[in-house]
Amino acid sequence: MMGSKNDVKLLSFLLSPVGHRVEWALKLKGVEFEYVEEDIFNKSNLLLELNPVHKKVPVLVHHQKPIAESLIIVEYIDQTWKQHPLLPQHPYQRALARFWGTVADKLVKTSYVAMCSSGDEQEKSVKEAKEVMDKIEEEIIKGKKFFGGDNIGYLDLAFGWIPYWLPIWEEVGSMQIVDPLKHCAISAWNTNFLSHPIIKDCLPPRDKMLVYSHRRKNEFSSTLRR
Amino acid sequence: MMGSKNDVKLLSFLLSPVGHRVEWALKLKGVEFEYVEEDIFNKSNLLLELNPVHKKVPVLVHHQKPIAESLIIVEYIDQTWKQHPLLPQHPYQRALARFWGTVADKLVKTSYVAMCSSGDEQEKSVKEAKEVMDKIEEEIIKGKKFFGGDNIGYLDLAFGWIPYWLPIWEEVGSMQIVDPLKHCAISAWNTNFLSHPIIKDCLPPRDKMLVYSHRRKNEFSSTLRR
Repeated sequence: MMGSKNDVKLLSFLLSPVGHRVEWALKLKGVEFEYVEEDIFNKSNLLLELNPVHKKVPVLVHHQKPIAESLIIVEYIDQTWKQHPLLPQHPYQRALARFWGTVADKLVKTSYVAMCSSGDEQEKSVKEAKEVMDKIEEEIIKGKKFFGGDNIGYLDLAFGWIPYWLPIWEEVGSMQIVDPLKHCAISAWNTNFLSHPIIKDCLPPRDKMLVYSHRRKNEFSSTLRR
Repeated sequence: MMGSKNDVKLLSFLLSPVGHRVEWALKLKGVEFEYVEEDIFNKSNLLLELNPVHKKVPVLVHHQKPIAESLIIVEYIDQTWKQHPLLPQHPYQRALARFWGTVADKLVKTSYVAMCSSGDEQEKSVKEAKEVMDKIEEEIIKGKKFFGGDNIGYLDLAFGWIPYWLPIWEEVGSMQIVDPLKHCAISAWNTNFLSHPIIKDCLPPRDKMLVYSHRRKNEFSSTLRR
C-alpha cells in the first residue's frame, strides 16, 4: 500500500457515482486512504470549508490540501502515484481522454435529469442522452475491452456510472437510454467493467440506491409543483 | 514562429470568448496557425465532422487530428509547445488551475444566461455569478498581477472573457456582476489583462459584440415566449 491514512483523506457519499471514480482510482493505484462519509442532506462544516465554491463531494485531501471535481482528482491521483497509469501519455490521446471525460460529466447530468423529470422534459433529456450514447458506441468503445484498451483507465472510471447507476435510474425514471441491441460494445464493456476485481468490490448496495433515486425523483417533482 | 499554417488550424468564431482562449494561447506560444471563421448560424460540414458530439467551436486541428473544448485545447497547446508555460508544473497547482478552469466555464454560462434572461431567472443567475466572483476575488487573484502570478497563464485565458465580454453582457442585460468597489483585485487584473500586448491586439470589435449580444438576448426571449 502506498500513501497513508494520515495524509490521504476522501470526503464522499456512499451512493455518489462521481465519488466512486475517486475511490476506484485510489484502489486501482493501491493508495491507502481515510474515507469520510458525508451527509449530503446536512453538509459538514469540513466540506463547506474544503470546497467553498461548489460545496459538493468528492473532495480529496492530500497533505492537508483539498482538491475538488472528481475527474480533476483522478488526474491528480494519476500524476501523484505513478503505478497503474490511468491517462494515456501522449498529449493528443490525453486531450481526447479529457474531452470524453467532459462528455461523461455532461451525460451523467442529462441522464439524472431524465430520471427525475417527466413529459417533454424527460423526452428531451432521454433523446439527448441516447444520441451521446450512440457517439460513445461508434467512436470510442467499439472493439475494445476497456475504454483504456486492455487495462481499465481514466475513461472507464469517468463512464463507470453507466453499468451500475444508469440501470437503476432507467428503472426509476421508466425510460431506456442504453439499448443493448444497438449499444452492443457499451453493453459488453458494462460486463467487463463490473467484473473487474477492484470495481465489483467497491459498489454501493443496490437497494439503497433504489430508495435514494426514488426519493430524489419525488423531491424534484415536488420542486416543480411549487 | 513555431508550427506551420499547414499543420495547425483553428476553427472559431470572431465573437466567441472561449474561442479567444485558444487564439491567445497560440499567440502567446508564437505558434503559427490557419484561422478558419465559422458561421455559427449555418455550421459547416467541416465543423460537424470535426466535433460531432457538441458541434461547437473552437476546434483545433493539429496534424489533421481535431481537439474540442477550449480549456482542453489550451492544455494540449501547453503540452505540445513548451515555450511560455501556461499551466503550473506541480500536480497540486495543476489540479487547482484545472478546478478554477471548470469554475470559469460554469461562470461564463451563468453570466451569459443572466444577460439573456429577465425577472426571477436573471436575478438568480446574477446572484450565483456574483457569489462566484466573490470567491475568485478572495481566493485566487488578491495580491497578484495575473492569475498565473507575474506572467499570464492558463487561468488568465480561462477568465479572459471577464474584462472584455462581461461589461458588454452587463450593459445588454442591464445588470451588474463585477462590482469595482468590492472586486478590487479582479478590476485591477482586468486592466493588467487588457494591457497585455498579445491580448489587446486580439480582441473582437466592441460594436459587433454589442449587436450580437442584443440579437442573442432577443432570440432567447422569443424562445421563452413561444
